Amino acid sequence: MDLHTYLEQSADVVDKLILRYFGDACDELSRATAHLLQAGGKRLRPAVVMLAADAVKKGSSYDILPASLALELTHSFTLIHDDIMDGDVARRGVPTVHTKWDEPTAILAGDVLYASAFEFLCLCSAPDNAKVRSISMLARTCVEICEGQHLDMSFEGRDDVTPGEYLEMVRKKTGVLYAAAAGIGAILAGGTPAQVEALYYYGQNTGMAFQIQDDLIDLTASSAKSGKDRGSDLREGKQTLISIKARESGIDLSPYRRVLSDAEIDRVLGELEACGVIDAVRGVAEELVETGKRNIAVLPRSPEKDLLEQVGDFFINRGA
Amino acid sequence: MDLHTYLEQSADVVDKLILRYFGDACDELSRATAHLLQAGGKRLRPAVVMLAADAVKKGSSYDILPASLALELTHSFTLIHDDIMDGDVARRGVPTVHTKWDEPTAILAGDVLYASAFEFLCLCSAPDNAKVRSISMLARTCVEICEGQHLDMSFEGRDDVTPGEYLEMVRKKTGVLYAAAAGIGAILAGGTPAQVEALYYYGQNTGMAFQIQDDLIDLTASSAKSGKDRGSDLREGKQTLISIKARESGIDLSPYRRVLSDAEIDRVLGELEACGVIDAVRGVAEELVETGKRNIAVLPRSPEKDLLEQVGDFFINRGA
Repeated sequence: MDLHTYLEQSADVVDKLILRYFGDACDELSRATAHLLQAGGKRLRPAVVMLAADAVKKGSSYDILPASLALELTHSFTLIHDDIMDGDVARRGVPTVHTKWDEPTAILAGDVLYASAFEFLCLCSAPDNAKVRSISMLARTCVEICEGQHLDMSFEGRDDVTPGEYLEMVRKKTGVLYAAAAGIGAILAGGTPAQVEALYYYGQNTGMAFQIQDDLIDLTASSAKSGKDRGSDLREGKQTLISIKARESGIDLSPYRRVLSDAEIDRVLGELEACGVIDAVRGVAEELVETGKRNIAVLPRSPEKDLLEQVGDFFINRGA
Repeated sequence: MDLHTYLEQSADVVDKLILRYFGDACDELSRATAHLLQAGGKRLRPAVVMLAADAVKKGSSYDILPASLALELTHSFTLIHDDIMDGDVARRGVPTVHTKWDEPTAILAGDVLYASAFEFLCLCSAPDNAKVRSISMLARTCVEICEGQHLDMSFEGRDDVTPGEYLEMVRKKTGVLYAAAAGIGAILAGGTPAQVEALYYYGQNTGMAFQIQDDLIDLTASSAKSGKDRGSDLREGKQTLISIKARESGIDLSPYRRVLSDAEIDRVLGELEACGVIDAVRGVAEELVETGKRNIAVLPRSPEKDLLEQVGDFFINRGA
């Protein structure tokens, strides 16, 4: 099966689960909890859970679908809380939860999804020791995500963030949740310790590449295509691998901390390409994906292992 | 052992655990996470975990201390997020986290404690199936606490809240965490389903009484004695069992939605006492504690069962 078809089918399964468990909200808190979850999304983390499980034990009789949902709930919880902290008003084409409702409701909606993630992990039919290890991994992951978001916020107003600091932030903010997705899939399906570790690092490395690609998309893709506000990182003077490498190349991006036309963004992009900044950033993302693929070289050949490799490539080729 | 001594000793154990795991914060997020946790507190929920465990199986070889800490972490997480929502500036004699730092840091500090609670539950040495059941119970409890806080906020601006609505709010906001404390202690120590259920409802009923007593303390205890701002519920026009029963008795408390002197609060209190409102509210709390004691009548006699009964009495006799 090709990756595109696989992702469509697995997203469909997750969407149905979300509809079943969050579809008939009968009070405002439940509606706020379901809001972002039902606004779409590619459901990539659940897909990674399922692929990792099948890559270590295809046809296992355990029902780990609730775990794949748990990872999506965790992702949705972090988005709701991040949107409050970052003051973002729209996401996935809908108003953010704290915009549509209010901050208290958004804090609570995130907290409900957070708890639900652990509830759904408990609902899997895997052996109890595997569940406990998965829960422990998800909990540690959530702590790291908070540390990553805090690190990201601490970069504001700094202009001396190093590539190493940036990569550590991205590892925690984005990498560890993909790591947990792949690791938990492997644990619940009964993978060996070596397989679990291989998949964990596969997820972490490709997840970091995913975030770097997000930064590139912010600069390169039209708003119409990405569904996001093109050039927002430039406008906000955000520390990304692009702005860090630009600074190292002697390019001053501070004049662009204002509303920019597409033509102006194109001009900056041209300058960054001419200096090799874009290629250098792309190179880091590609290297991370290659490392991710090497991480899972220990797995036996299977269609799912092949799809996981394609997932890595997809992470850095989407929407640019 | 008398209850006072027991609570002092168990709080000491919990304080030491907190110091060990949260004592050497080396960045701002860690300091914010540890802030409220280290500002004291009676550690009543951890005590209930330990007493419930010992009441069903004294001398069990399992180490469930991490679970008792998990309940305190959960409590601390809810306080940090509630303080943001309620705009409170001080608690336990120290500035609230969002006041000392900022809202984003307070949201993250709460989220870190939330995840840590699940991590510590996983760290117990009990059998894995007991851990999974405990984790599931804590997760469900967290969802209910969010619902309770949302319900409480939805009461603002209403003047027709019924005693039933109030009690349901209190059950979710305060009762279920005591229920989980007692239930999880029983589960981890290997209690029978009947014992777990008995202790769960013991916790829920006494926990509801605890909250009603908190409302009474707000009105009856001097600020110096309670460490809180006397009469704040009156000033804010909060819906409590006191204000609901006052309304049912034809007493209009709305003129008191302003800064009040001690003499004025004493006058309101006198009026409420004369009409039987205070006795009626106290009666509800006492009935809940009696129900809680009946819940655990199924347990064999033990010093710990005796202490649990005393805990119920303490909940409605403290600080009035």
